[in-house]
Amino acid sequence: MPDSRVPPARLCRFITAALERLGLPPTDAATVARLMTDAETQGSDGHGAIRLAPYARRVREGGYNLQPAIRVVQEKPGMALLDGDNGFGHLVMHKATELAIEKARTCGVAWVGSRLSNHAGPASLYARMAAAQDMIGVYFAVGNANHLPPWGGLDMLLSTNPVAVAIPAAEEPPVVLDMASTVAAYGKVKAKAQRGEQMPIGWMIDRLGQPLTDPKRADEGFLMPIGGYKGYGLALVIGMLAGTLNGAAMGREVIDFNKDYRTTTNTGQAILVIDPAAFGDVAAFKARVDTVVREMRASERMPGVERVWLPGEQSHLRRQQNEREGIALPPALLAQLDAIAGELGIPTLHNTN
Amino acid sequence: MPDSRVPPARLCRFITAALERLGLPPTDAATVARLMTDAETQGSDGHGAIRLAPYARRVREGGYNLQPAIRVVQEKPGMALLDGDNGFGHLVMHKATELAIEKARTCGVAWVGSRLSNHAGPASLYARMAAAQDMIGVYFAVGNANHLPPWGGLDMLLSTNPVAVAIPAAEEPPVVLDMASTVAAYGKVKAKAQRGEQMPIGWMIDRLGQPLTDPKRADEGFLMPIGGYKGYGLALVIGMLAGTLNGAAMGREVIDFNKDYRTTTNTGQAILVIDPAAFGDVAAFKARVDTVVREMRASERMPGVERVWLPGEQSHLRRQQNEREGIALPPALLAQLDAIAGELGIPTLHNTN
Repeated sequence: MPDSRVPPARLCRFITAALERLGLPPTDAATVARLMTDAETQGSDGHGAIRLAPYARRVREGGYNLQPAIRVVQEKPGMALLDGDNGFGHLVMHKATELAIEKARTCGVAWVGSRLSNHAGPASLYARMAAAQDMIGVYFAVGNANHLPPWGGLDMLLSTNPVAVAIPAAEEPPVVLDMASTVAAYGKVKAKAQRGEQMPIGWMIDRLGQPLTDPKRADEGFLMPIGGYKGYGLALVIGMLAGTLNGAAMGREVIDFNKDYRTTTNTGQAILVIDPAAFGDVAAFKARVDTVVREMRASERMPGVERVWLPGEQSHLRRQQNEREGIALPPALLAQLDAIAGELGIPTLHNTN
Repeated sequence: MPDSRVPPARLCRFITAALERLGLPPTDAATVARLMTDAETQGSDGHGAIRLAPYARRVREGGYNLQPAIRVVQEKPGMALLDGDNGFGHLVMHKATELAIEKARTCGVAWVGSRLSNHAGPASLYARMAAAQDMIGVYFAVGNANHLPPWGGLDMLLSTNPVAVAIPAAEEPPVVLDMASTVAAYGKVKAKAQRGEQMPIGWMIDRLGQPLTDPKRADEGFLMPIGGYKGYGLALVIGMLAGTLNGAAMGREVIDFNKDYRTTTNTGQAILVIDPAAFGDVAAFKARVDTVVREMRASERMPGVERVWLPGEQSHLRRQQNEREGIALPPALLAQLDAIAGELGIPTLHNTN
């Protein structure tokens, strides 16, 4: 493993130590760190280690409840609503997904929503938890800052509200779609800013409708929804399913967690789990998924295209490579993690066992 | 009501008579006609009366089972899988949605999928059935002809695979998103062709990647997915949820119902119903939906934009107008319906009571 790359297990221990020092109970620190590391390992660089600094700041400013009583406040055989008690979103949605998987075994399908939750990392993490149990996972979330107006409007009333779908396959990697309802997720804008890169035209526009390509000017414009009015509609209904339905923040209620580190965000999320075993033979289903995957991959290609990718396939390969060779963290992020280590009085990532 | 406009009830009686003459049992003819009329009334002109001719041809060529035994083949408390026995898709998904609503009352959430179904009209019809019961409906379908390749590919392996979401409100119309995973639905291409109009740039491209704007040349190109690779991913996972999971056609198995009127399509669809009553007070939920809707509508607007629309709001107004004033059917469609009346020996639409 090259020196400049960090083994995921070491990153996980570093994050665990940092979260423990910040005051999370050890088990909770380990759960959050594992999910953050998983995000980084699969290449979700907008939702991995880069988030430790804002999480730490939010803890210090009193924005989190570090001893949350995460509890079921509404329940039916096929659903539950969790009150996250303002704990880390990873803890809330990890528990929500475990509960949805359990309920799906009985009911065939189950849905668990959250309120008073917080940012929980990339949407695919929770959808993939279901796929790891040979189930289908569909995750929805209200993003933690509004970056787009309704179509034709100028008021920032909607977040990028992502959806993720994970579908287990037999010999192929699971199909994992994880998409914001905008051309780019805001986490990608932040990653561009940290790397000092410009954004492509089409990610954002300013209030006059002109292309905005400097990620440092991101708060002067808004993200573009995919397919124009369709992406606006998608962001809206995802927000209603993950937020409004659960009594969580949506629209004007959404707290911009990049600017306000104290106010309870009342984040809403939802996980839908479908058990293919309820529909018939699971092995036969997974074989059918393989067939479709291979048909797509074997398609004749447009001139200049080397390979047809399946959703989640590049993340899958990235995860394998990062597990084997370690994760290449950008220098700016490493410096940020060193600074956190200094502030918290823990060994730096480089000096973590 | 102006002479040139057709009252929805008359259109419904005409379609019912045509379907009965084609051999559907009277109750089934009435159900299909009501849903087709509903589609036309809300302005889903690609999925309304325009479909009577291809349905009739499919019946005549033996592509439908007119006496289907639509039955539950897999069941759990929160789900069911229906075998449509190659009946009209409207019958299958109407039954599926009723079953899902019933199961959602008990489980909080329910999912009913179909196989051996057929084209069932616009996705919003079934999602709206749930909203009419103060529930949330989410509908997925595998389209009945492949019009797009995987991203970067050239083989037509995916249909426009739509999703619809309907969310009940209190004083506001329900929020109803009904979108194909492509910039345009293929039904809209067909409607353009029938009206002799050109398509806007961006709806379709040809195999060399050049814009295709003549709808009569539609089979020389493919529809563009929204957000590029994101829309491809969306079409793929919707197809897996509505098709692959149910043992219905997906990918290469999809029968092009515009070219083949005999082969069983084995169409797959799915309806997810969520009962807001399981999550808390329904009136409070619907009031929260109203609040979000009004926030969007009240947004400051970009220069030149007269109004910010909510998903489903234009269809809602269209439905109200058409119910009040009658539906303005284009002359080409009226001529087509007259021809069908002649073939079947029933009174023309104009002469229907």
